[in-house]
Amino acid sequence: MTELVNFQWGNARGFTYIGGDAGSLTVINHQTVSGEPIEFVQRVDVRPGVVRLAAMAGSWTFAGVASNDRYTTRSEKTQLVELQAKMDRSTSTRSALIFLRKSDEWWALTQDERRGILEEKSHHIAIGMRFLPAVARRLLHCRDLGETTPFDFIGHLDFAPSDADKFDDMLGELRRTEEWSYIDREIDIRLQS
Amino acid sequence: MTELVNFQWGNARGFTYIGGDAGSLTVINHQTVSGEPIEFVQRVDVRPGVVRLAAMAGSWTFAGVASNDRYTTRSEKTQLVELQAKMDRSTSTRSALIFLRKSDEWWALTQDERRGILEEKSHHIAIGMRFLPAVARRLLHCRDLGETTPFDFIGHLDFAPSDADKFDDMLGELRRTEEWSYIDREIDIRLQS
Repeated sequence: MTELVNFQWGNARGFTYIGGDAGSLTVINHQTVSGEPIEFVQRVDVRPGVVRLAAMAGSWTFAGVASNDRYTTRSEKTQLVELQAKMDRSTSTRSALIFLRKSDEWWALTQDERRGILEEKSHHIAIGMRFLPAVARRLLHCRDLGETTPFDFIGHLDFAPSDADKFDDMLGELRRTEEWSYIDREIDIRLQS
Repeated sequence: MTELVNFQWGNARGFTYIGGDAGSLTVINHQTVSGEPIEFVQRVDVRPGVVRLAAMAGSWTFAGVASNDRYTTRSEKTQLVELQAKMDRSTSTRSALIFLRKSDEWWALTQDERRGILEEKSHHIAIGMRFLPAVARRLLHCRDLGETTPFDFIGHLDFAPSDADKFDDMLGELRRTEEWSYIDREIDIRLQS
């Protein structure tokens, strides 16, 4: 086997975030909420597909794939579709890039147990719904990408600067839930475009 | 971006099946159950990790990753763990490699709808349970591997030659379910070791 070199997978559901000195998004805040930190960078480049780059000093590349709903029921989905807005509205010049890993304990739970914690106990979907359409969200799955990945999820959420406090309220509520006790690594990067 | 070359991801949950002229498993039957066929090969090599090979004539490479339970409840899991056997028993010299793709319609369903079809209507878990411990199973997920993949799942199931008819009965039951109406590509390869 030869070494991994730069390449790109074609996948319409994939997105890659490259932290470094280039890209359309400027980092304005970088917080290590839990677990191992990642390098500070000045800018973030968002690219379609799953891109892999040979390691470069002072930068990182994290990719994920939008997948099927894992917990949402039809009645929740109907409400979400009615309320939610698309990413990249012209007024949504602020965004948050949240890198998350859940513990082995979480992944060993069965589907009904995870759903019970996520929604019946933690109200993750219901909390998020209260902040629609102000906050738009892209959720990417990384855990099953093939290699051993440093995070399980990438959340990219955008909103208007005037809704930044509201966004912090939402994240604060989520971080106090039982679900969040299963998150063992979290990086919160704020960006402006 | 350079072209993809041979490489291997490190992932303890990943397995790659390489069809060609080499490998520990000999093909004894190859059936295109639905959708586009794949090349006939003489042997199949099973490798740990997610391996990608530059295309070779008359062969194929399909990889997947064992993931968390997507539908199983705790009570089902408790029964499964009690009954199931591990792959690679010395008596399990026959196996079936089933490559499956589900339709876009399936993937657009919500979690409760998919669970309803898979178990409450189709009894997928209950049917499988009746054939434990004769049949041991490895289920790999491919759909979110990064690239656009030709299949969503790889099932590798092994059993003793004397249980081959029993295995066919199980597969026959599953193929008559409502769940299977969402499968738009299926290849069934039988192997001996």
